Amino acid sequence: MDKLDTHNEIYKNKTRKSMNFYSKAIKLFPGGISHNIRYFAPYPFFVKKSKGKFLYDVDENKFIDYWMGHWALILGHSYPIISKQISKQSMYGTLFGTTNIQSVELGEIIQKLMPKAERMRFSSTGSEATMYAVRLARAKTRKRVIAKVIGGWHGFNTTLLHSVSYPFELDEGMGLVDDEQFIESLPFNDFEPVLGGAGCIPPENDYLLGLQEFAKKNGAIFILDEIVTGFRVSINGAQKIYNLEPDLFTLGKIAGGGLPIGIVCGDKEIMSLSDNTGNQNKGNFCSIGGGTFSANPLTMIAGYATLSFLKKNQNMVYPKINKLGDKVRKDLTKVFLDNKIKAEITGIGSLFKIHFLNDKVNSIKNAFDVAISNKSKLINYEMNLMSNYNIFFLPTKLGAISYVHDVKDINNLINATQKIIDSGNLK
Amino acid sequence: MDKLDTHNEIYKNKTRKSMNFYSKAIKLFPGGISHNIRYFAPYPFFVKKSKGKFLYDVDENKFIDYWMGHWALILGHSYPIISKQISKQSMYGTLFGTTNIQSVELGEIIQKLMPKAERMRFSSTGSEATMYAVRLARAKTRKRVIAKVIGGWHGFNTTLLHSVSYPFELDEGMGLVDDEQFIESLPFNDFEPVLGGAGCIPPENDYLLGLQEFAKKNGAIFILDEIVTGFRVSINGAQKIYNLEPDLFTLGKIAGGGLPIGIVCGDKEIMSLSDNTGNQNKGNFCSIGGGTFSANPLTMIAGYATLSFLKKNQNMVYPKINKLGDKVRKDLTKVFLDNKIKAEITGIGSLFKIHFLNDKVNSIKNAFDVAISNKSKLINYEMNLMSNYNIFFLPTKLGAISYVHDVKDINNLINATQKIIDSGNLK
Repeated sequence: MDKLDTHNEIYKNKTRKSMNFYSKAIKLFPGGISHNIRYFAPYPFFVKKSKGKFLYDVDENKFIDYWMGHWALILGHSYPIISKQISKQSMYGTLFGTTNIQSVELGEIIQKLMPKAERMRFSSTGSEATMYAVRLARAKTRKRVIAKVIGGWHGFNTTLLHSVSYPFELDEGMGLVDDEQFIESLPFNDFEPVLGGAGCIPPENDYLLGLQEFAKKNGAIFILDEIVTGFRVSINGAQKIYNLEPDLFTLGKIAGGGLPIGIVCGDKEIMSLSDNTGNQNKGNFCSIGGGTFSANPLTMIAGYATLSFLKKNQNMVYPKINKLGDKVRKDLTKVFLDNKIKAEITGIGSLFKIHFLNDKVNSIKNAFDVAISNKSKLINYEMNLMSNYNIFFLPTKLGAISYVHDVKDINNLINATQKIIDSGNLK
Repeated sequence: MDKLDTHNEIYKNKTRKSMNFYSKAIKLFPGGISHNIRYFAPYPFFVKKSKGKFLYDVDENKFIDYWMGHWALILGHSYPIISKQISKQSMYGTLFGTTNIQSVELGEIIQKLMPKAERMRFSSTGSEATMYAVRLARAKTRKRVIAKVIGGWHGFNTTLLHSVSYPFELDEGMGLVDDEQFIESLPFNDFEPVLGGAGCIPPENDYLLGLQEFAKKNGAIFILDEIVTGFRVSINGAQKIYNLEPDLFTLGKIAGGGLPIGIVCGDKEIMSLSDNTGNQNKGNFCSIGGGTFSANPLTMIAGYATLSFLKKNQNMVYPKINKLGDKVRKDLTKVFLDNKIKAEITGIGSLFKIHFLNDKVNSIKNAFDVAISNKSKLINYEMNLMSNYNIFFLPTKLGAISYVHDVKDINNLINATQKIIDSGNLK
């Protein structure tokens, strides 16, 4: 039995009930999942509950979670003050379907933290927010062509589902109407401030400022996708760190405090194109959602509770998680180097990503490099962590550190890594 | 002071704090709102909480709610068993970001109630679900052209934001890339089983069966949008009532128990095109969301609690709300007829919609008729109800009856209507 089988067997032994759930799930959901990236072989474990830094599966395994709800849970799972607010609100309405005071409160704190959000529109997913940002930009400029960066992930909407995965020049699957003529895909970095889905790659010096300047000079709208980075890389987002002034930007994830949200924000003139209250005719306004669940009070209060906690405690939260991020990058780099394993750890602040290098790639600069790095070794490593050490990364995805992680967790990760190397299982 | 001013003044007097909130809101949100339809003049009231059949605004007004969260709240606001489940789950995770047992439970009950959901995929909004349904249909047929019905509303996604509002032949606003060549817009009824957004118009005899037959004969995919009708017009949806066997259909609203959800469901072969677990290359699978919040445990348990309550109590819930629906349609028809006011009340089951007729239209058959009916009279009527009788319809939108409404509520609505007519305010 080779080493891959070994950890596979260990995984299967400890997740027998999950296997039963998976056999039910594949009769309900294509592939047994509700999101393409949530599958991993032989089958994903089925979570029953989560709390703090832990995921608990149906077999009573308790995993340290570095996935943290697609990186949305900066305070960990069910942080008490957030849970309390959700619990209270659940008695007094989850869906008013009307204007409400909770949305004003969340809007005001966002505007305070990110002043370039001169106006904003709440929707329920990031994918909607990025779609609306492009629609607004097109409405403003009356141009059609958008430039996006190769490997940049901005959700499942038809508008931006292009040049996301390798090989980048092919359609992202069947059924997408070909409006490629309206997309220019750029190599290197991205209009995401940090290339997230493709491998957690920070921008090179002044790359984003250069893009912004180019856009402004050419009458284009500069859109910054801060769905991952907003309230994550700093309380004022990546735009503060990189001195950017985007015309439009998008928020999501952390902004909803663990509940569904997407927000398109930006310049008030551009945003005002979506204002239909003056009985505009269809020719002079830009129709964006909204949606049934937009600005629902449960999301609003969870987002507000999260952002006001972050605002109040920013001098504790960000230094702590960024320091842990620095430590995990440094310590992982060292453990692989000491053991002569070619790896590169990318990331920024509390986000980090492991890449195993090979003959084809010896440094990670963009999505091409990530695509041709040694992914099977990465999956093997992460399945080892999961099977033998109850440490969970969604295989091949970046890790996120939350406020409830601590130095011991990082040390455990490093120790586990050394043991995996020592056992000869990392290959 | 004319009568419109009168109820406007009454409205303003009772919503002073809302006016303050609105003045804050317009500095945050284009038009002060997070969904185009939530605005009405002079400004919408700001809800603070909701419970049962009531909305409570920031000025302590208590409105009987016939909007019911975009018709999603079939059990009313914060029905105790649902709230309890949400409250409990909030302590144990709102966003696992992984496969989970809660999604299997919701999936299983949906499949039991709607057996044509051979497979399904959870997303977070209806707009995503309809977009994915079209993408899957295109992937299956390798055709591009879709037929949709004029006036049919299927969300803010770029794919289906066509021929929604009057004048139907114009683009639905700026910034939409013109792929009109791929849309055939049909008059009359819709691939929604009941024309919802456009005016709550049930299909004529065998219209839907005819469409289905036409689609099957011509190698097209028949998609039924049951986001409004699913679990509303019957526990098995409109497909049961009209004897339909859609290839694909969409659910939302009620299925999430008041939390964000969208579901694309249908034939297992078509749905399996979205299965990426076998390491398909991009050429042979159809990439659909998902999304960060898809299958989140809070939505899953709220949906499951709602559907299992409905399943258990279907012989109480549906007869009650449908009977109230019949009564409201009958009584409103009578009160307008008795007072020689030309009106038509459309609807099905617990959904109903008031239309005031005029010289241009004397019967409501499709979205054109609705568009040219007397909307200013309707707004006047609904603002009168709101201002003087604390009865809330989102102006010009259909009303929904929930399980917590009762005969007295309908009688109150009829009495209020008679008083508005008597006062000479209905014009």
